[in-house]
Amino acid sequence: MITKEDIQNQMIQAVETVKRTNPMAGSITNTVTINFVANAQLAVGGSAAMVYLPDEGEFLAKAGGATYINVGTLLTIYEQTLPHTAKTLHDMEKPWVLDPVAVGIGSLRTQLLQQFKEYKPSVIRGNASEIIALAGLWELDGGTDVSNVRGVDSTDSVSTAKAAAVALAKWTGGAVAVSGKTDLITDGSVIAISHGGSHFMEKITGSGCSLGGVVAVYATATSPFIAALTATAVYNLAGARAGNKVDGPGSFQVQFLDELYKATAADIGNNPFEIEEV
Amino acid sequence: MITKEDIQNQMIQAVETVKRTNPMAGSITNTVTINFVANAQLAVGGSAAMVYLPDEGEFLAKAGGATYINVGTLLTIYEQTLPHTAKTLHDMEKPWVLDPVAVGIGSLRTQLLQQFKEYKPSVIRGNASEIIALAGLWELDGGTDVSNVRGVDSTDSVSTAKAAAVALAKWTGGAVAVSGKTDLITDGSVIAISHGGSHFMEKITGSGCSLGGVVAVYATATSPFIAALTATAVYNLAGARAGNKVDGPGSFQVQFLDELYKATAADIGNNPFEIEEV
Amino acid sequence: MITKEDIQNQMIQAVETVKRTNPMAGSITNTVTINFVANAQLAVGGSAAMVYLPDEGEFLAKAGGATYINVGTLLTIYEQTLPHTAKTLHDMEKPWVLDPVAVGIGSLRTQLLQQFKEYKPSVIRGNASEIIALAGLWELDGGTDVSNVRGVDSTDSVSTAKAAAVALAKWTGGAVAVSGKTDLITDGSVIAISHGGSHFMEKITGSGCSLGGVVAVYATATSPFIAALTATAVYNLAGARAGNKVDGPGSFQVQFLDELYKATAADIGNNPFEIEEV
Repeated sequence: MITKEDIQNQMIQAVETVKRTNPMAGSITNTVTINFVANAQLAVGGSAAMVYLPDEGEFLAKAGGATYINVGTLLTIYEQTLPHTAKTLHDMEKPWVLDPVAVGIGSLRTQLLQQFKEYKPSVIRGNASEIIALAGLWELDGGTDVSNVRGVDSTDSVSTAKAAAVALAKWTGGAVAVSGKTDLITDGSVIAISHGGSHFMEKITGSGCSLGGVVAVYATATSPFIAALTATAVYNLAGARAGNKVDGPGSFQVQFLDELYKATAADIGNNPFEIEEV
Repeated sequence: MITKEDIQNQMIQAVETVKRTNPMAGSITNTVTINFVANAQLAVGGSAAMVYLPDEGEFLAKAGGATYINVGTLLTIYEQTLPHTAKTLHDMEKPWVLDPVAVGIGSLRTQLLQQFKEYKPSVIRGNASEIIALAGLWELDGGTDVSNVRGVDSTDSVSTAKAAAVALAKWTGGAVAVSGKTDLITDGSVIAISHGGSHFMEKITGSGCSLGGVVAVYATATSPFIAALTATAVYNLAGARAGNKVDGPGSFQVQFLDELYKATAADIGNNPFEIEEV
Repeated sequence: MITKEDIQNQMIQAVETVKRTNPMAGSITNTVTINFVANAQLAVGGSAAMVYLPDEGEFLAKAGGATYINVGTLLTIYEQTLPHTAKTLHDMEKPWVLDPVAVGIGSLRTQLLQQFKEYKPSVIRGNASEIIALAGLWELDGGTDVSNVRGVDSTDSVSTAKAAAVALAKWTGGAVAVSGKTDLITDGSVIAISHGGSHFMEKITGSGCSLGGVVAVYATATSPFIAALTATAVYNLAGARAGNKVDGPGSFQVQFLDELYKATAADIGNNPFEIEEV
């Protein structure tokens, strides 16, 4: 098994590469948190670009080092844009991150998420309920037919999504990140548990979405597993630091972006996590 | 007539229920302030989810304790989504809040707002010009044929919208909240005048929209009138507190979200208001 | 040639007129930074309204003192909305500001930007790569066939866009603002170079978009050249002041909005710039 030190070294390298090269990661994402996604991507050293139309999704897929697709607030044109973009990414073997927000709500969302199975997202990021429901939709181990997704919130704990996360990662050959109080990241053979964060992260909208966008930034520079773990680590670090400075969610979001920007590669590599074999 | 003390007790109970139960209030709302709406809903203890498509609107209408519909930046699909969602809410007797932003601009907006008359929103929240124009569109007392809405701003004072507000509340059997320097809330038989706020609330976009979203959160837990008054009270309280701490609109929005989060049930119940019979 | 003092007096007058009259400048703009655009317009004393549909674009074009069109996140309906709105503005000889974000990405964007040539935007604001690419698309001097636009970022320096900016301004009879480390504003015969800002402006999304929205606010009150220079000056001033107070991009955006609000007419007129003849 890969050692913790190897993982930390790869994380540090990914952070340094991103800070040095300012890589572009395009997004097709929801309108609720689109600004926060872009600002978080910029704060860690990436470059952001967002689109809605099919040929523009294809353009970003080709131009960017990685792409973020979040199915939050679907538009009708997404019926064309999302499969087209995901297919382009898969055909070109470019990394892409899927955030299956609110899986189970509405027919188009279900249709799109089913189509994504064959385009194998490099990283899937979601809360426990979303990860379990997506595994169910894809008929993989650990999934359930009945979604416990409540709007955009999880009603399951991270540990209950372990089997689903592993099954999804084995299917895609990439990685899965389950966000919650502690976060679980797996490539199907190794599981990392990352610690930190703040209770305020649930009191602002977009902690999860913007994390997905930042995973895409790191995925331009490293493997899906390291990208997912590095992004989760900087979120846990910045969340904890920001949470210690504030007493409300408005100030939290401001400080959180500042701490994303200030976190050094060493800080991020040293943020607490453990690894275990699946 | 209901006493002021009865009203205050119901307000306190509504705030406590929301803080304890984290109720979900879905929204179909404009893209300008959608992030602020969600963050304000979270700050007072609710949960947020936003959609655009018809079957997703229906899903949220059924899944949420109440729903917020804001006609700010209309998309073409809203021709289907909004009447379908409003009809679902009306048929299920679920509370919903209408924000008739910029009534009078464009044919789809007019068509949708006309359709809403029969689906009787539980709470209508707007500025004075919007309330007067909506009453006019629905051919109720106090309305005018000619809208004084200027873009999204009011050119009328709150008191001039009193007759229109009462007529709208009588028609829907719910409540109407007119936002301005002082705010007027009525259920058609009682009028409450709520005080507080800050001049900075007009210097940030979305004070009104996010207030509508917060009314929906409280409407999951109490009557339309108490929901509208409670939301207005916490806005006046948080606005005044934030306004005292800052000298610019950027800082104001940050502090305002913090104060929404920190306001206790007792604080909100004690925010100054008077009541009178219609 | 116009003297620097004349220019400063016109800038001061424009700022004072806006603060006194709260003019409305409608926008059709991207969803990433739409909230920031509105808040920036409000901070300098204007009023904001955003729409997507064709007849609503026409309404705002007629109702507002000037209009801002930003082609950032195109929706399918924009194929109708944008030419219709631009034609209305041109026919009525109303000032409008074009932000050719990410020119070169996608067929609809190219089609729309080509159509805009005949509707002659009063002010074109973009980064160096966008200005050069637009001049190329319009087959004017200083343009290139091959775009160096990378997503939404510039890969060219401001000075390299000088010929393209002058050619565009001569074609439209209005003004062009090229944003970068130092900013270049020209009406085709005079060039102003404006100084200030902060490195944090590239670390938040929407510095450029919101500047375009603020140019539109000033364009309600003065000539295209003075509007572009005044908006650039207040951005350079507020950016420098905010940048001196913060150590992260989250805090920067908050302080930047505060400083936009606090900047006086004299402050803005005195922000450093030089002029030269073309």
